[in-house]
Amino acid sequence: MMHNFNAGPSILPQEVFKQASEAILNYNNSGLSILEIGHRTDLFQAVMDEAIALVKELMQLDDQHEVLFLHGGASTQFFQIPMNLLNENEIAAYTDTGTWSSKAIKEAKLYGHVEVVCSAKESNYNHLPKQFTVPKTAKYLHLTTNETIHGVQWHDFTPFFEAGVPLVADMSSDILSREMDFKKFDLIYAGAQKNVGAAGVNLLIVNKNILGKVNRKLSTMMDYRQHIENGSMLNTPPVFAVYVCMLTLRWLKSQGGVAAIEKINNQKAQLLYNTLDSLPVFKGTVINKEDRSIMNACFVMDNADLEKEFLTLCKQNNIYGVKGHRSVGGFRPSLYNALPLSSVQVLTDLMKDFANKKG
Amino acid sequence: MMHNFNAGPSILPQEVFKQASEAILNYNNSGLSILEIGHRTDLFQAVMDEAIALVKELMQLDDQHEVLFLHGGASTQFFQIPMNLLNENEIAAYTDTGTWSSKAIKEAKLYGHVEVVCSAKESNYNHLPKQFTVPKTAKYLHLTTNETIHGVQWHDFTPFFEAGVPLVADMSSDILSREMDFKKFDLIYAGAQKNVGAAGVNLLIVNKNILGKVNRKLSTMMDYRQHIENGSMLNTPPVFAVYVCMLTLRWLKSQGGVAAIEKINNQKAQLLYNTLDSLPVFKGTVINKEDRSIMNACFVMDNADLEKEFLTLCKQNNIYGVKGHRSVGGFRPSLYNALPLSSVQVLTDLMKDFANKKG
Repeated sequence: MMHNFNAGPSILPQEVFKQASEAILNYNNSGLSILEIGHRTDLFQAVMDEAIALVKELMQLDDQHEVLFLHGGASTQFFQIPMNLLNENEIAAYTDTGTWSSKAIKEAKLYGHVEVVCSAKESNYNHLPKQFTVPKTAKYLHLTTNETIHGVQWHDFTPFFEAGVPLVADMSSDILSREMDFKKFDLIYAGAQKNVGAAGVNLLIVNKNILGKVNRKLSTMMDYRQHIENGSMLNTPPVFAVYVCMLTLRWLKSQGGVAAIEKINNQKAQLLYNTLDSLPVFKGTVINKEDRSIMNACFVMDNADLEKEFLTLCKQNNIYGVKGHRSVGGFRPSLYNALPLSSVQVLTDLMKDFANKKG
Repeated sequence: MMHNFNAGPSILPQEVFKQASEAILNYNNSGLSILEIGHRTDLFQAVMDEAIALVKELMQLDDQHEVLFLHGGASTQFFQIPMNLLNENEIAAYTDTGTWSSKAIKEAKLYGHVEVVCSAKESNYNHLPKQFTVPKTAKYLHLTTNETIHGVQWHDFTPFFEAGVPLVADMSSDILSREMDFKKFDLIYAGAQKNVGAAGVNLLIVNKNILGKVNRKLSTMMDYRQHIENGSMLNTPPVFAVYVCMLTLRWLKSQGGVAAIEKINNQKAQLLYNTLDSLPVFKGTVINKEDRSIMNACFVMDNADLEKEFLTLCKQNNIYGVKGHRSVGGFRPSLYNALPLSSVQVLTDLMKDFANKKG
């Protein structure tokens, strides 16, 4: 058995793999593969309807919030968001907390004025910059709830909720992993390939009241209102990717939903961070413990040879995907929803063994 | 066994379904699902490399042409093409031959001047308008090689090759179905969900010499040059959809490539059209036989009740997806690469039986 700590695309529930595999041969006893059914058939409409309903239920959304499944990944949202929300002469406020938020900032600058209200860039994003003031004139405030590469995660949203402007959040790497007041966000987006489903689709939730306020003419495929009107089927959707999302959301519900998975996610993170803190050979890269991510845990060793040795050891023990991003180095095991606690146990046991030998 | 004449997403080779289904449980004996492997691993890089190499080989491209697998479907290209190729004060020439070309025209108008050089709109696109003059100042000429909804298809590209401006073609519904001098096109795009693979990815081939000539600032995800530079991995690609493309391209090569599949496609189309022309109860909607598509055959009956009756009969005989688009009505069996000749035989036999009873 493999222990898949990959940062994304990442582990999904084993029963999702099983169901998806079957549906490719014969979808719901239709005699057809899920890959060859028309997207405007009852067969697929049922998938899309259930996926949307599950998102609304699991996130406890209200009627103002629309759920979309879009092409293009989260990276397309970096420009599609300002395109839909920001006029050229207006201001958008951005928090700069890591690689992903900095990419969002770069793209937004093409569409209007960007005010970076806080940044941890100078310290290679090793903490969250919590002091910031948001201009009242800002059209929206953007945050990245979890920075996959640097392993920092916002845990207190009070300052964001109190900013008094529409709130836009990239939740690609921690959506549906913990309870949050999702209704209080005006736009949430997330590449599906971590907690939602398979790569190739982007989940977007938008409060429809913030739309329709920009002057620029929008290309049809870029206009959120068009996608809402057409129920995420303005063009051929990524049928199979949406299907895998639906299966993964169904699984999450069967586990007890977000509150239940959060408990397990916390157990996994605690086990990993407690082990890390007890073994001096490993060093966490996030300087404030309160900023640590429960989804992506970053750590290094003082010695590059030791790192190599530990990586080889991981490989020998079927531990996959723990290498850190090149901009941080070291290790970055990801602990997404579908990763079992038992996999973290295997990894932490190995860390302890290794430390005992090297300590 | 089902006979899948769906217009798209549509039938793929049975062995592709089998391999894709297996890869979801255990990809290449890695112990991992194809859905959970990282896109920046050797495991996936090999898939992307092979898919690109197969496209180059099957289409006999040269070194000037780059092959990309992009998000967003062909509909995103309707605006991304003018965004990359057309300045606001410049002209692009478009042929207006059906629903898809008219959508391309609509989106291009947001980015520059569009000159519609020919149109069959007035006659509901029941033929191809072959008389046209392309302004020498046009930055490019756009055509839709096959109109999926109306069943018209360009067979002679001489006037396009002789227009003397860069040539841009939407080949979504007939790419890789017949031999063409693909090198002579400067940009080819195609939603994969017909002849290339699964829904959720767009194949794009571009002559790199036409890029980098517009003044506007391009969002990173919209800039073809960025995708070229990053080998179609600027962000997380639709991993599984690309994998299914690779498998389908491999299958096409194993069948003898484009020339071989064209022979079978012609046999299928001949069988269907000969049957159609021999049975007065069915009426082809394309008025010039020379404009008929070998991919999508459109026909109606005089009597709506008869149409209903025939549709029910199809259903009873496991014939799936033959209903015409609502804008044309009647029937539109699609005859994509993976559809076996035997399925067309079943359909035409049924047409003959029906005509005998009703004639």
